[in-house]
Amino acid sequence: MISKKIKEAFLTSSAIRAMFVEGKEMAEKYGAENVYDFSLGNPATPAPASVGEAICSLVREAEQNGAAGSFQLHGYMENAGYADVRRAVARNLNRRFDTDFEEQDIVMTVGAAGGINIIFKTILDPGDEVAVFAPYFGEYRQYAANFDARIVEVAPDFNDFQPNMDDFAAKLTGRTKAVIVNTPNNPTGVIYKPETLQRIAGLLEEKQREYGTDIYLVSDEPYRELVYDGNREDFLTKYYRNTIVSYSFSKSLSLPGERIGYVAVPKEAADAGDLIRGLEISNRTLGFVNAPSLMQKAVAECLEEKTDLAFYDENRRLLYDGLTNLGFSCIKPEGAFYLWVKAPKGEEEAFVEAGKKHHIIMVKGSAFGCAGYVRLAYCVSHETVRNSLPAFAELAEEMNISQNRG
Amino acid sequence: MISKKIKEAFLTSSAIRAMFVEGKEMAEKYGAENVYDFSLGNPATPAPASVGEAICSLVREAEQNGAAGSFQLHGYMENAGYADVRRAVARNLNRRFDTDFEEQDIVMTVGAAGGINIIFKTILDPGDEVAVFAPYFGEYRQYAANFDARIVEVAPDFNDFQPNMDDFAAKLTGRTKAVIVNTPNNPTGVIYKPETLQRIAGLLEEKQREYGTDIYLVSDEPYRELVYDGNREDFLTKYYRNTIVSYSFSKSLSLPGERIGYVAVPKEAADAGDLIRGLEISNRTLGFVNAPSLMQKAVAECLEEKTDLAFYDENRRLLYDGLTNLGFSCIKPEGAFYLWVKAPKGEEEAFVEAGKKHHIIMVKGSAFGCAGYVRLAYCVSHETVRNSLPAFAELAEEMNISQNRG
Repeated sequence: MISKKIKEAFLTSSAIRAMFVEGKEMAEKYGAENVYDFSLGNPATPAPASVGEAICSLVREAEQNGAAGSFQLHGYMENAGYADVRRAVARNLNRRFDTDFEEQDIVMTVGAAGGINIIFKTILDPGDEVAVFAPYFGEYRQYAANFDARIVEVAPDFNDFQPNMDDFAAKLTGRTKAVIVNTPNNPTGVIYKPETLQRIAGLLEEKQREYGTDIYLVSDEPYRELVYDGNREDFLTKYYRNTIVSYSFSKSLSLPGERIGYVAVPKEAADAGDLIRGLEISNRTLGFVNAPSLMQKAVAECLEEKTDLAFYDENRRLLYDGLTNLGFSCIKPEGAFYLWVKAPKGEEEAFVEAGKKHHIIMVKGSAFGCAGYVRLAYCVSHETVRNSLPAFAELAEEMNISQNRG
Repeated sequence: MISKKIKEAFLTSSAIRAMFVEGKEMAEKYGAENVYDFSLGNPATPAPASVGEAICSLVREAEQNGAAGSFQLHGYMENAGYADVRRAVARNLNRRFDTDFEEQDIVMTVGAAGGINIIFKTILDPGDEVAVFAPYFGEYRQYAANFDARIVEVAPDFNDFQPNMDDFAAKLTGRTKAVIVNTPNNPTGVIYKPETLQRIAGLLEEKQREYGTDIYLVSDEPYRELVYDGNREDFLTKYYRNTIVSYSFSKSLSLPGERIGYVAVPKEAADAGDLIRGLEISNRTLGFVNAPSLMQKAVAECLEEKTDLAFYDENRRLLYDGLTNLGFSCIKPEGAFYLWVKAPKGEEEAFVEAGKKHHIIMVKGSAFGCAGYVRLAYCVSHETVRNSLPAFAELAEEMNISQNRG
């Protein structure tokens, strides 16, 4: 009595989640300190103290105002979210990125996953195509499938994991309704260069003219603030008019379980008014109704905060240097908290399985539409990274890595 | 560039939400104290004090435990929700309703709207039918449309607004995948009698045999605890094996903005294991990922609490007696916080429009698949109810209600 789509999902279910469960089972068996679980993007840094302070002071203030206070904090509001919260988000973006958002351009969402789903519901008809740059967050496939749209994979440049622009040009058709850009990137940690973004924008403008369509660039930005080595936070609306931004506070404030984010639609985007109206309706009818109310108000008070980047940066250096020195071939991460590692001889399954024997949990690249690699989520404790290095050394020896090098 | 479904939604968008917006505009114009807004089911009672206490103590405890504490409170967990929270929910249900749920039978959800959507995604294929008893919460139409399923309306018995069983029998087909039951009912306030539920169950058993199918009864229970006049809280799994329960804390704890609820699947339901697995996958892939984490933990500590029923009961008596005395024909509410009123001469549009002139905001019955009536949500202050009565008196006079009576 299960639907056909769910039956299919039983067979293709999230490799990331499967490894997460396997890692937990292994931790129970061998002790958490003896398992190096790099499966899930679950932040290791605590939420800034100001988040907890905001939550408690909002709750206390509400209590002092009785029914009206409770209503203001925990009640229904517009499906787009509290007007004052949306105004705060708009002003914060304007100050940081020289944009001109107003409250009516912002829709508060149940995280970026909720954000992308309401965007897709608003713009996608069955059979529409959504272009994604491989490797990419595998859940995009499910989100597109929710609306019977088709994911079209664009190959990377395997030298630096910027997109392969020739392949991108070849993959854009009259049915392309959206292109997802995710920079800093999950799973590679690569930041798309300004030139890359300009070239993407130029090509989309060209194809829009050629096909007489509008193609939306959906910018999935949960890692926006997680940039290293002096890289600057970027904001994609300045490159391309038809950009829709989906943001999440999951990583920047270490709140992934709270499901809080927003979608921003610049006024210059095609059909901007209809988009916003569609997003509001989709927020309601897909069952989100609105982003969680207390957490909306809490993040609005913490927009200037961000998590401890130095913590992730230390992990990044430890893991990248450690694995590179062992002879593994890694893409140097510039942002996010993932390391993208080439599987020895390109055999990802063998690599993942061999890793498990050394209690190292990795996710295979084909989960991200790019076989032959693995992803390591280094949003873990320093100890986990440090202690994993001897295990990686054993793994390198077992797989004859140094011999295979170059 | 907007999808066809959303374009259609622009035309048929929520009448409840539209009246809510109209009420807000009217309140700005005439002052909130001069507008009697009965449009939205937004609880007027504050959340119990224990909810705020639970939230703050959870946040403080997390802070004392640094990164691990933050991770435990705000991090990702299984898509079904925290195991300890699900265990607490299962035990609470078992104690109250003599059920035998375990943690693996519970999926924490983003409210009941999220719950019904993940149920529908799990069981519905395009073209499947979902039977609903009119009048019904209009959003069910959107939820079914998300999965290209079809809502089939079953007529009420217009005397007492229990379902018309003959019509129900006639509407069940080989394509019927689900039946939604919502008792205490939105919008009528009626509680389905045990005999009604037994007859529904009996008919479903019969039709399952006839068609060789399983038909799930989806029990939408946000008003479970809101019962008056000595009516007992009911739980539908005891009537019918293939029952799936969708619950929300929105009304019982006055937390509608927080989007927190759960789905419970009894072990005896057909394909129970696949259902749970499908619900977990749907929670993830529809973009909910998981129910908001802090609020999961908070409600788990408040399962024995409920909102101030006496408050709503006073409104119920005031409004029912007041309108009945004025000559309006009302169904006496037994639960929830809605009053279902017959429109004079059955002309709902004229009644709603005439109400507006007296600053009374009502929602027309056709929004609930039952024209000729209006719904009043009396989850408002006592003052609003009391002050509305002179306005209703003027309305009654204007519409010659007493003459039309009988």
